[in-house]
Amino acid sequence: MSDTKAKFEAGLAGVVAGQTAVGEVTQTSLRYRGYEIADLAANSTFEETAHLLIHCELPNASQLKDFRHRVQAAMNLPKQVTDVVDAMPKSTPPMDVLRTVVSILGHYDPDGQNNAKSANLGKSERLLGQIACATGYWCRRMGNLPEVKPDPNATHGFNLLAMMTGKKPSELAGRVMDGTLVLYAEHEFNASTFTARTIASTLADMHSAVTGAIGALKGPLHGGANEAAMHQFLSIGKVDNVDNWFNELEAHNKANPTNKRLIMGFGHRVYKNGDHRAAILRDWSLQLSKETGQKHWIDMADRLQKIMLDKKNIHPNTDYPAAHAYYQMGIPIPLYTPIFVCSRITGWCAHIIEQYENNRIIRPGSDYIGVPARDVQPISKR
Amino acid sequence: MSDTKAKFEAGLAGVVAGQTAVGEVTQTSLRYRGYEIADLAANSTFEETAHLLIHCELPNASQLKDFRHRVQAAMNLPKQVTDVVDAMPKSTPPMDVLRTVVSILGHYDPDGQNNAKSANLGKSERLLGQIACATGYWCRRMGNLPEVKPDPNATHGFNLLAMMTGKKPSELAGRVMDGTLVLYAEHEFNASTFTARTIASTLADMHSAVTGAIGALKGPLHGGANEAAMHQFLSIGKVDNVDNWFNELEAHNKANPTNKRLIMGFGHRVYKNGDHRAAILRDWSLQLSKETGQKHWIDMADRLQKIMLDKKNIHPNTDYPAAHAYYQMGIPIPLYTPIFVCSRITGWCAHIIEQYENNRIIRPGSDYIGVPARDVQPISKR
Repeated sequence: MSDTKAKFEAGLAGVVAGQTAVGEVTQTSLRYRGYEIADLAANSTFEETAHLLIHCELPNASQLKDFRHRVQAAMNLPKQVTDVVDAMPKSTPPMDVLRTVVSILGHYDPDGQNNAKSANLGKSERLLGQIACATGYWCRRMGNLPEVKPDPNATHGFNLLAMMTGKKPSELAGRVMDGTLVLYAEHEFNASTFTARTIASTLADMHSAVTGAIGALKGPLHGGANEAAMHQFLSIGKVDNVDNWFNELEAHNKANPTNKRLIMGFGHRVYKNGDHRAAILRDWSLQLSKETGQKHWIDMADRLQKIMLDKKNIHPNTDYPAAHAYYQMGIPIPLYTPIFVCSRITGWCAHIIEQYENNRIIRPGSDYIGVPARDVQPISKR
Repeated sequence: MSDTKAKFEAGLAGVVAGQTAVGEVTQTSLRYRGYEIADLAANSTFEETAHLLIHCELPNASQLKDFRHRVQAAMNLPKQVTDVVDAMPKSTPPMDVLRTVVSILGHYDPDGQNNAKSANLGKSERLLGQIACATGYWCRRMGNLPEVKPDPNATHGFNLLAMMTGKKPSELAGRVMDGTLVLYAEHEFNASTFTARTIASTLADMHSAVTGAIGALKGPLHGGANEAAMHQFLSIGKVDNVDNWFNELEAHNKANPTNKRLIMGFGHRVYKNGDHRAAILRDWSLQLSKETGQKHWIDMADRLQKIMLDKKNIHPNTDYPAAHAYYQMGIPIPLYTPIFVCSRITGWCAHIIEQYENNRIIRPGSDYIGVPARDVQPISKR
């Protein structure tokens, strides 16, 4: 829209793109529908948080029981979906598997193309169960692991971990997994949620919006960062190597200003003084290390964190402790971002429903910087 | 990001979200890389326009020959894809079919997760061929029609029409189809292209971005509008009914201000004085009517267009004449939006490649309007 030549912010940084009642992010807090994340992490399960996001309120015991029942009933993929998944090469990136699975689930959803709120609440609950089920299914297929059916009395996080690893996890590991799902569930207009809202704003269906959001979350600048953070810990190897590793990277970046290596798991578009979720998850991962005997990951992470804070004044984000927590649980690294999907599906669905309720198509403009007007020459003269 | 409480424009209307050298939209012109759309429509084929968008310049004869060869070589879906498509219920919305097909094509692309420019140019050309092929495949499957292989000497539009209808089209029909692909190919930061750029901005792969864009284009406020416009012509029935149809709709809307019926095929977020593409396509559809004997659609459209201009000062958009042009070609209505995909894939790929080349993650903020801060109550007290 070059008639206007308005200035713009790259990546829409700091631009307010709309209103929401789902989540609130400030420098000092992260709240889901009014509840502070630390309060939810300490005093709710992921299913309670999921109910809060999708149905706007924390459930009472009876509502929670019914909600769990409906979500668990969806932990059973249609044969048409497992047939497709079984035919995929085992090298398929798990995020691509989920993208395809959700797209196909849209073909078979009992509410089909129905975009009414009641239909979309049902779709949200089904997707919550189906995505956990698909993540577990693929993880076991990769590792030839036995199937574990969800325990009707266990939390979503406990069941997800069991369905992935093919065995019942410890109570602590199940609780930490469930807690990470609480922490990852919602974060206002992040790139994947904004993608979901943009797709929904054309009044396309919920499965189209979620399929697009999975594609966005896959990117290494978004959900893919938790996998990159673990690869970084593995390449550092041990706490004694951290300083050398950091100094070598700094030397490389000084010598190669146009080809810098990034340090993964640090920094955030919004939080400049630290990500509230990272400290909570670091403490859970430390507890877990008493069971797993793998405290060296936390030692390594703490050392690099201190260097980054001292030298660059940059704090770790959630992906940083998520990496060493999931690694201790024995989850293959390419499944870390799919776990993020298992959680964020709740925030996405809440935002999609909100977008439909007060919709205007999301259609920004652009500044044209290309070649000036020119005439088409006949092909014989080109 | 409620620390700032900035004002916002609903749907990012009028907000410049970034720079582009792909297309330029003003009130008086639409240009692809500097060429005016009327010039391209009159003096280039869709393949030339596709080459322009993807490779930045119109091709010479030799480049065009090579480009056509590469695109046609991709008009051959992998068996893994046709197996999935063959298993889909015939009632699956064709846009859902394409969304799933592109997601699965990502699993098998020879360049896999490679995000280098050379890889993405190859992916763009393959997607251009594959999407036309998948659209034809599904159309024939719906109608039990015979397969028609692409003619190596025919245009992309001629071949697409042949692959959909199962028979060689007339020269004029092939030319009009090819022309509609030129008109639909690019339109800067529309909702689907902006979706593709947002997904690409996380550095997710091209197939993730295109899968999301297909989801966005599906919506009735975006690509789905050409189908809705045809249903409207069918419900009006004949030119003598237009005035009554309009008056009844106006009366309904006056009596039901909260439940208004929309008139499809009119208005545009950017163009307020008419969509340049609509007049070109209306003339092509009129030419076509001399072959098909179906001039009544154009008469009906012209009458409603005059009423809308006189009474509401609103002009038709491209979807309006596209509807009666495609209907005259005998294409099933649910395939109109997939044809749009067959064209816009070129604009999407050009924008995705451009986004990667100068990337910043697209991550806006939001204004929180939900419940104030509150404490989690134990579940026993809820």
